[in-house]
Amino acid sequence: MHEIKVRLPSGSYKIQIEAGSLGRCGDQIRAVSAAERVVVISDENVWSLYGSQLEAALVNAGFLVDSILIPPGEGSKTMECFARVCGNMADLHVQRDHLIIAFGGGVVGDLAGFAAAVYMRGLPYVQIPTTLLAQVDSSVGGKTAIDLPQGKNLVGAFHQPQIVITDPDLLKTLDKRHLAEGMAEIIKYGAISDEELFVKLEEYGSIEGALPHMEDIIFHCCDTKRVFVEQDERDGGERQKLNFGHSFGHAIEKMGLYRKHSHGEAVALGMVMAAKTGEALGLTPIGTGERLKRIIQAYQLPTKINVEYKELVHHMSMDKKNDHEGHKLILLKAMGKSMIYTVAEAELSTILEDILELAL
Amino acid sequence: MHEIKVRLPSGSYKIQIEAGSLGRCGDQIRAVSAAERVVVISDENVWSLYGSQLEAALVNAGFLVDSILIPPGEGSKTMECFARVCGNMADLHVQRDHLIIAFGGGVVGDLAGFAAAVYMRGLPYVQIPTTLLAQVDSSVGGKTAIDLPQGKNLVGAFHQPQIVITDPDLLKTLDKRHLAEGMAEIIKYGAISDEELFVKLEEYGSIEGALPHMEDIIFHCCDTKRVFVEQDERDGGERQKLNFGHSFGHAIEKMGLYRKHSHGEAVALGMVMAAKTGEALGLTPIGTGERLKRIIQAYQLPTKINVEYKELVHHMSMDKKNDHEGHKLILLKAMGKSMIYTVAEAELSTILEDILELAL
Repeated sequence: MHEIKVRLPSGSYKIQIEAGSLGRCGDQIRAVSAAERVVVISDENVWSLYGSQLEAALVNAGFLVDSILIPPGEGSKTMECFARVCGNMADLHVQRDHLIIAFGGGVVGDLAGFAAAVYMRGLPYVQIPTTLLAQVDSSVGGKTAIDLPQGKNLVGAFHQPQIVITDPDLLKTLDKRHLAEGMAEIIKYGAISDEELFVKLEEYGSIEGALPHMEDIIFHCCDTKRVFVEQDERDGGERQKLNFGHSFGHAIEKMGLYRKHSHGEAVALGMVMAAKTGEALGLTPIGTGERLKRIIQAYQLPTKINVEYKELVHHMSMDKKNDHEGHKLILLKAMGKSMIYTVAEAELSTILEDILELAL
Repeated sequence: MHEIKVRLPSGSYKIQIEAGSLGRCGDQIRAVSAAERVVVISDENVWSLYGSQLEAALVNAGFLVDSILIPPGEGSKTMECFARVCGNMADLHVQRDHLIIAFGGGVVGDLAGFAAAVYMRGLPYVQIPTTLLAQVDSSVGGKTAIDLPQGKNLVGAFHQPQIVITDPDLLKTLDKRHLAEGMAEIIKYGAISDEELFVKLEEYGSIEGALPHMEDIIFHCCDTKRVFVEQDERDGGERQKLNFGHSFGHAIEKMGLYRKHSHGEAVALGMVMAAKTGEALGLTPIGTGERLKRIIQAYQLPTKINVEYKELVHHMSMDKKNDHEGHKLILLKAMGKSMIYTVAEAELSTILEDILELAL
């Protein structure tokens, strides 16, 4: 078993990574909670595959278990679904001494985490991520949120879990598109802070090549994220580097109304755009964008997109990281080294016009 | 000018209480914020009376000002209205370097404060309370929330303002029912922790009698609340005493669907019930309930209610302060001294049946 301890001013918690841990997680959760009752928030797919296994583990540890299910997919990360989940919690008479468990991918983790953050002004919760993307990214660091029609993650809270339980065996039922989505974030960790990981991913050469190494890869990514989060829990500085590719990616997702491109696919496209933007600004070594593009293709992620640069810039203008000086972007100084850079909207617009004209 | 400094682990801020301060508040706000833009969240009544005065003060201090208006009344403290305000914020391209101002009574303060707490995971905000209730209670302490159909304040956050600016002159346009509502909370402060204030209120004898002393009364109440909040920001212990009368009151409000009884009226009824419950349990000196009843009548608040005790207990079962051991109530040890006491549902039910049969 890999174990990572995240130490934050608002509280410390463990990330436990072990194949087969879902069936044993009752004891791990009991170790951090004296609650009598737990409410599991999950999506219908995850619950039908693994719900009975989780429920048995929790009942064995002495918990009374209720569940709230949401439809699978990014379409559930809305104000409407959030309102429904809060209403369900009230109907279940959830109280302050209950424990919430977020059991699913990034959508479930973000939505359930936000509900736990604000229901009765905050309830303790546990993350059990079930997708590769959630296991390497969204389950770590305490960021929770829902989307608005105007932009992703615009309403949310920082709320750290009591423990994160990660079982790589759950990835066996993930389809290739979801695995690829997780790979986008894994590639990101390599690009922003770990050239060694990036080179390994180049060597593995494909999802199939990387799969046997996944427990180590997840550990490595979570530990890298831990370093950023411990430096900057509230996302005011260093932690923003984790958003490499995301300013572009969020805009792409929004333009597709969260349907055409998955989060990981949009981030993959966004990373190539960010690298090429850095090259155009003379801040990123020439060729970095192409190197990123090759690995992204190898992991079955898209590198081409047909959008109007004006529309892209318009949607990027809603990004939380912007201020009145312009768009705050994460750019690469080199492969494995990142920087925060503010670029004026007019300049970004010109650069993106060039990049998109060449179809990346 | 009265000034109170609230010192909390999550940040310190001032409460400034001064007649006529609305017209000068731009400089006070500029002293705590370097923002270029502010978004004022207010209700239509308050904005039509005082909006231009606030806007002028802000513009003079160099702020660009936008406003978001909600319909007046408790009916706006809903998930729907919260969603609309968040959407308005997105449409105004609110960013992290903007300042939010909550300008209104308790409903505006709670709703706008919650929006500020979670929009982009937290924006700085200022409270400018315009009702007596908000000036002595909801603007102090950082509790923000919205209601669910199942219960009041079920979704919310702790989010401390940058500054609270209280102008008692704004009370001149309040009708008597709203003044009486504020008096209910003022009487509460006397009952739970300050017999001297309680005796003064008995001497003043009426709203008209108390009005000339209002700036001092507001200062006194805010300073009492400060002591509770500094001891227990997150409402896990001492601070709960501020909820004297509220467990009953929230249930009464809910039964009237937030319309029949105002918050203050419901709290007034709730305080008499709590005092009589304490008497029935042998914890509160006999006669305390009648003394409370007399002062509540003097300040034009209701003391009679026609409800079924079973329905009342049912609605109280949703209270945030309950746990699996029963209903956590605030009771009086004596006038000016309070205690937290957990009573089993069956026992509470029997007591309330008796109390309500005697029509309080």
